[in-house]
Amino acid sequence: MKQAYESIAWQEDHLVILDQTQLPLREIYSDVNTVGQVWDAIKKLKIRGAPAIGIAAAYGLYLGVRDLKSKNFTSFNVELNRWIEYLKSSRPTAVNLSWALERVNQTVYANKDKDLEEIKEIILKTAETIHSEDKRVCRKIGQNGAKLVKKGSNILTHCNTGGLATGAYGTAFSVLLHANDDDKDIHVWVDETRPLLQGARLTTWELQKAEIPFHLITDSMAGSLMNTGKVDIVVVGADRVTANGDTANKIGTYSLAVLAKENNIPFYVALPLSSFDLETDTGEEIEIEEREPEEITHLNKTQITPKKTKAYNPAFDITPNKYITGFITEKGIVEPNFKKNIKKLFD
Amino acid sequence: MKQAYESIAWQEDHLVILDQTQLPLREIYSDVNTVGQVWDAIKKLKIRGAPAIGIAAAYGLYLGVRDLKSKNFTSFNVELNRWIEYLKSSRPTAVNLSWALERVNQTVYANKDKDLEEIKEIILKTAETIHSEDKRVCRKIGQNGAKLVKKGSNILTHCNTGGLATGAYGTAFSVLLHANDDDKDIHVWVDETRPLLQGARLTTWELQKAEIPFHLITDSMAGSLMNTGKVDIVVVGADRVTANGDTANKIGTYSLAVLAKENNIPFYVALPLSSFDLETDTGEEIEIEEREPEEITHLNKTQITPKKTKAYNPAFDITPNKYITGFITEKGIVEPNFKKNIKKLFD
Repeated sequence: MKQAYESIAWQEDHLVILDQTQLPLREIYSDVNTVGQVWDAIKKLKIRGAPAIGIAAAYGLYLGVRDLKSKNFTSFNVELNRWIEYLKSSRPTAVNLSWALERVNQTVYANKDKDLEEIKEIILKTAETIHSEDKRVCRKIGQNGAKLVKKGSNILTHCNTGGLATGAYGTAFSVLLHANDDDKDIHVWVDETRPLLQGARLTTWELQKAEIPFHLITDSMAGSLMNTGKVDIVVVGADRVTANGDTANKIGTYSLAVLAKENNIPFYVALPLSSFDLETDTGEEIEIEEREPEEITHLNKTQITPKKTKAYNPAFDITPNKYITGFITEKGIVEPNFKKNIKKLFD
Repeated sequence: MKQAYESIAWQEDHLVILDQTQLPLREIYSDVNTVGQVWDAIKKLKIRGAPAIGIAAAYGLYLGVRDLKSKNFTSFNVELNRWIEYLKSSRPTAVNLSWALERVNQTVYANKDKDLEEIKEIILKTAETIHSEDKRVCRKIGQNGAKLVKKGSNILTHCNTGGLATGAYGTAFSVLLHANDDDKDIHVWVDETRPLLQGARLTTWELQKAEIPFHLITDSMAGSLMNTGKVDIVVVGADRVTANGDTANKIGTYSLAVLAKENNIPFYVALPLSSFDLETDTGEEIEIEEREPEEITHLNKTQITPKKTKAYNPAFDITPNKYITGFITEKGIVEPNFKKNIKKLFD
């Protein structure tokens, strides 16, 4: 399976990213040469999706340290950790961001006796490894998830979880790709995913590229479709899943999960192991990122509300584990009891 | 209580409407002189909201017949019924449309022996009566509903149900107005209500005019707000309620009702008696109006999706009666058992 586009690519000495804020009408690739530009690209959602953010941040860390003239490891390490904290601050909810940066950090520490120039090369290599591993993981998620999809299924999905959001293929989107590749005759309902319309702009774009039949809907239509028998399975991604299976994901996920349960429709969360956060016990402990009200009051920089309208804009919500049928991971499907079975993944 | 605007006003020999497709940034009043213009205004949502549509259609019927040169009642009546069917076709789901037109029709029939010019005047008078009755009914709905609102409540509402949608004050919106007038210190969560953003454009506009504190949210946020204790009561309007209490209303209402029940939050539907459709037993029999996909794929005439994106656009959904706490009407609150208690309203 090949993708016709790459959201992130390392080219010799810099990063090339597909600017997702310009999609779907313009397919613009931008050169990214500094750690500041990586931070900005993540903050402004030019790069988005938990795994893609992690990959970009790892490359970003390399961009941050490659020109350092540190005298010794200690002073190099201070700078490295400054950039790690800086990059983490670009999207506080995305656990892959911390995960990828900490992985680089640990690899650096394991090689701390090496020459600093060699350590810099190790950082780049680690970023490349994180990237290629993500592609392999996403393929596996898709293969595992596709087995859950019955022939002729109507699959509902939310936000964008495709190759744009990951190294390639995506998470929930990889399930669609692989089910389609297995000739399952699927049809996809795409939630537009307000306020930033990742479904309307990005998932539709990726579905068109993959030639998978779909219809776009507003987020408010999903429940009614479920209630009238038009949805067979719901598959979404995740930004972070805690030790008990509570799931932080794009705002609106909680509602879909409740509505799916009410209508006896299986509700699956597809994610790599790197999106599990075993150090957090439950979803109640997750801090929810609140974004600018202008994302709701304006569209394409045009105000759609009366002036001075106040809006509340939480980017994520928490879906309690009781609404989730299972997790689709590269190591297979995780079924309830989640606390026990998620732990097992890491044994 | 006075409103600073009138959505529909009869001025001597024509109708003046506030063009709701231009709100909130422009407050434009248009003259409407023909039945064709009324049909068009309803179809294009310049006039919207079930009661407002009924009022406009009744005036529209007068505009359709006033210049007729019929020789006798029979031929006049043929023309009258042609316009009734024509006007009904502008918004098939809205029961008030049929209700208002049939009311005029019956009044005409009761006066069929009168002079045709006199009958025409009776049609105009009936339209004016429907209009003024609606104002009185809306005030009463607001007074009755306000009693359900506890001091300091966070009230969630959907779509637009205000003075714009009715003769004045609104239905669900009248509850907000009267609760605010009773110094209940309310705060309103306004669902933006995709695809046409009636919440973001119109309800916000009316709340600002009434100086009621509010925050706008996307439709996908309502569930999460309920789950985190930020919503005390949900009040919505209705396009049609069947004999058993099943409710057709703006797409997204079903989801809100399920989510409210899951979180033990009271879910009320505010409507005039004219929106009950006792001849239809259950919601399953209601035909759902499907609208143009461009309402989802475009915003302000700009495409927000890839080209050729297919979208599905049902305008309404059906909320089964089991999710509804009660109906707020001009004759008081209707509690379960709905089939029995709705019937009682009309005894």
